[in-house]
Amino acid sequence: MKIGKHTIVFENTPVIISTGSAVGPKEKGGPLSKYFDTSVEDVYFGEKTFEKAESKFMAEAIDLAIKKAELDIHKIDYMFAGDLLNQCISSGYTARNLGISFFGLYGACSTFAEANILAASFVNAGYAYNSIASASSHFCASERQFRMPLEQGTQLTPTSQWTVTGSGATLIAKADENNKKIYPHISMATPGKVIDLGIKDIANMGAAMMPAAFDTIITHFEDTNRTPDYYDLIITGDLGILGSKLLKEQLKNYGYNIDNNHIDCGVKIFDTNAQDTAMGGSGCGCSASVFCGYIYPMLKEKKINRVLFIATGALMSPVSLGQGESIPGVAHAVVIEN
Amino acid sequence: MKIGKHTIVFENTPVIISTGSAVGPKEKGGPLSKYFDTSVEDVYFGEKTFEKAESKFMAEAIDLAIKKAELDIHKIDYMFAGDLLNQCISSGYTARNLGISFFGLYGACSTFAEANILAASFVNAGYAYNSIASASSHFCASERQFRMPLEQGTQLTPTSQWTVTGSGATLIAKADENNKKIYPHISMATPGKVIDLGIKDIANMGAAMMPAAFDTIITHFEDTNRTPDYYDLIITGDLGILGSKLLKEQLKNYGYNIDNNHIDCGVKIFDTNAQDTAMGGSGCGCSASVFCGYIYPMLKEKKINRVLFIATGALMSPVSLGQGESIPGVAHAVVIEN
Repeated sequence: MKIGKHTIVFENTPVIISTGSAVGPKEKGGPLSKYFDTSVEDVYFGEKTFEKAESKFMAEAIDLAIKKAELDIHKIDYMFAGDLLNQCISSGYTARNLGISFFGLYGACSTFAEANILAASFVNAGYAYNSIASASSHFCASERQFRMPLEQGTQLTPTSQWTVTGSGATLIAKADENNKKIYPHISMATPGKVIDLGIKDIANMGAAMMPAAFDTIITHFEDTNRTPDYYDLIITGDLGILGSKLLKEQLKNYGYNIDNNHIDCGVKIFDTNAQDTAMGGSGCGCSASVFCGYIYPMLKEKKINRVLFIATGALMSPVSLGQGESIPGVAHAVVIEN
Repeated sequence: MKIGKHTIVFENTPVIISTGSAVGPKEKGGPLSKYFDTSVEDVYFGEKTFEKAESKFMAEAIDLAIKKAELDIHKIDYMFAGDLLNQCISSGYTARNLGISFFGLYGACSTFAEANILAASFVNAGYAYNSIASASSHFCASERQFRMPLEQGTQLTPTSQWTVTGSGATLIAKADENNKKIYPHISMATPGKVIDLGIKDIANMGAAMMPAAFDTIITHFEDTNRTPDYYDLIITGDLGILGSKLLKEQLKNYGYNIDNNHIDCGVKIFDTNAQDTAMGGSGCGCSASVFCGYIYPMLKEKKINRVLFIATGALMSPVSLGQGESIPGVAHAVVIEN
């Protein structure tokens, strides 16, 4: 059911019955280390290339989610997934090896929220009994694709962010009398518009994506007649320190104060000073691994009960920037509740 | 509702109330020329770069669909779109300029079917009243991204295909007593698995994608208890001459004969001999523009009444091929009926 301008209500309360998370060495060395299911020292994860490693992180996250749910893989109807690599090869090759019907997505760092919206949409409508949502990213693969090869030793600019190496996956299932008492469910979604206020600095993604987050959050509150205090946590994907600051200021100007219940996955995943990650983490794998490893268990243990999760993406490419274009942002919001 | 292994039935019969199609000079010179809404001589479509031109083709197709439906753009809830460019910039920048909530997709040349499945899913479930589905591609932008810059003058290999410059868009609306008498509706979908039989030749996409088309078609027939003769047309996206031949042979071996009602958009769009396009057209824009310009009007005028439309995509990238990977294919099927 649609309410307001852009919000979907999932009346049949599709439940997240499990999650999986897998990350690389930098994330393993960060403050959320103990929350991830798998964390490895080897940035190649035993593969020969960064791109193949990224695919393996996604495969690992999905495998963990399926195993934890003790579900036969043949009972999973669809997989909704995407990543940052050109032609989304991390997801495509993972889907090939799993043999699950596949919807490929590209929403840059908003992909994990997009995947969860679509997976929940399919389960809620009865098109699927079980669906997987996943996203991944890899620092080394991203750097050489979007910026410079690592071998060049380019320094970070102060507003830049550090692409997370890792992946997260949720397994979303049809609610029934038993599982809905145990598992958190996806109750609503507010998919976002593409917003572009003219930022052209590829080393300032937080500022480029913030206006989209702002627009989606405002739309969500207006559509639902909710206010920030309804939520135990309002979680942004990877606005980083600067983007988060700008978002909080802008929302305050608009009359919404999220100072007490806002966290940003990109800020949480690294100790930005000690780990030299400038404004914090980014990449599809950032919000995916933090949601699956850190947030979901809190929901499942009912330490928190109402979460507004907004993943933001920057929809440019090196080619579009080279042609003088600015960086459009998109933000998709998902509500997870007990 | 889900039936069989992987088929969705849209009980509320979402209707396609309009389409738009826009193509470039090579397509304008081809046998389907008169069917496209817009066809231009200028491969740049008045823009400074091929990539910006591709985005303009998509914007034009969507604009045409909206205008023909005489619908206020604010009544369109969601846009599902994707393209072949890295980071799907053709769709992202189009979405920015339209201001419609955006789900970015990547399914290579299967994207147009994927977009229609998701748009129909949302309308059928009541998440949206009106949704846009679109996809685009551009020969010149694709060549330099996937193969060689045009300036190099590389010759076509005999099994290669020619990426279509163009786009198509469908406008899918909630069915009501009036519109369902007039417009064809999307009745079913069979989303596909990623299938890879080990083809590594980037100049033989037809062979790489055929196994996925075969798998999805077989699944569709088995799930629905239908046989090929149920359909007036069984339309593949861009298998080309060779891929189509292989598909028909394989299906015949399996007991399904589609010789009399199969067409391939890639074969239809060019006069392959006179236009020197080897095995025919390809690219997301191929099936999108042919469906919207050529197929949909036949459905609307009830010259044909039952169509199985299967768009196929190859999910590799130049990087994955460079790393020794083979080319996985995916095929999504959509049923459009009166």
